[in-house]
Amino acid sequence: MHSGSCGELILGVDPGSIRTGFGLIRKFDGKISHVAHGTIVLDRRRALSERMRELATDLAQLVARYEPHHVVVEDVFYFKNARSALILGQARGVVLAVLGLHGLRAQTLTPTEAKSLVSGFGRAKKFQIAKLVAMELSIAMPASEDASDALALALAHAYKTGH
Amino acid sequence: MHSGSCGELILGVDPGSIRTGFGLIRKFDGKISHVAHGTIVLDRRRALSERMRELATDLAQLVARYEPHHVVVEDVFYFKNARSALILGQARGVVLAVLGLHGLRAQTLTPTEAKSLVSGFGRAKKFQIAKLVAMELSIAMPASEDASDALALALAHAYKTGH
Repeated sequence: MHSGSCGELILGVDPGSIRTGFGLIRKFDGKISHVAHGTIVLDRRRALSERMRELATDLAQLVARYEPHHVVVEDVFYFKNARSALILGQARGVVLAVLGLHGLRAQTLTPTEAKSLVSGFGRAKKFQIAKLVAMELSIAMPASEDASDALALALAHAYKTGH
Repeated sequence: MHSGSCGELILGVDPGSIRTGFGLIRKFDGKISHVAHGTIVLDRRRALSERMRELATDLAQLVARYEPHHVVVEDVFYFKNARSALILGQARGVVLAVLGLHGLRAQTLTPTEAKSLVSGFGRAKKFQIAKLVAMELSIAMPASEDASDALALALAHAYKTGH
């Protein structure tokens, strides 16, 4: 499934302690196309450290399978409380570690930056983003918001950098 | 430097976004001895995602070098604010990911649990813990509090589990 020889693969990742969305697109000859998207869903009944272990191994498999050239991870600054920030931070740390060990430098975009780049409006609703992503990539609307957000990150990166 | 054939190696890790302490002890034939300790120090001028990549690779090297049997990571619940919780969470996530990819399940202890197990007093001061750790392991007091805390985690795990 390695597609490295046909253009640049861009992976977007929207980390979460229960649901981590991923979206993979290809930029080839100036055209953007959809490669894959999905959600890594972890069992909330398991201990956080166990979930993080699972997230690490699942994401490592994904990265080894597709070997993306560029990776964009959602950056977040505001939280309702410190506990939820700590938990989300751990999922984000897992993602950064897996990428780092694979020799990939994570690019980051805030949700507002990603929305602006995809829709021209930083406060667009999630379903609006999902619609635009589906249209741009000629796919059905992703069933999962996390996957749609991840595809939006990858698209935003492509628009921003020209990759 | 692999010491797996002589007893059980226990690694304690005190994650931080700038300084991550580690401490490694051996339990062999009922006796506890010091193997190594230190601090992974990251450059605070670099972007957080870059620091997390560096932490991941440094810790992966450490784990590959010593191949510990048990690992204890400090668990934390309270923070002064959400931003610091997010940042510390990421360092903790990096540690959990590296361990998970190495096939290790992280045990966790809160600072209070670790202090209680090492000193009998959950609110002991850091320098008291450092002194006790040094005495127990017959070493000079660790120069870094992070390393001393990490050794204390490993010791606490040894006392708690009989490992």
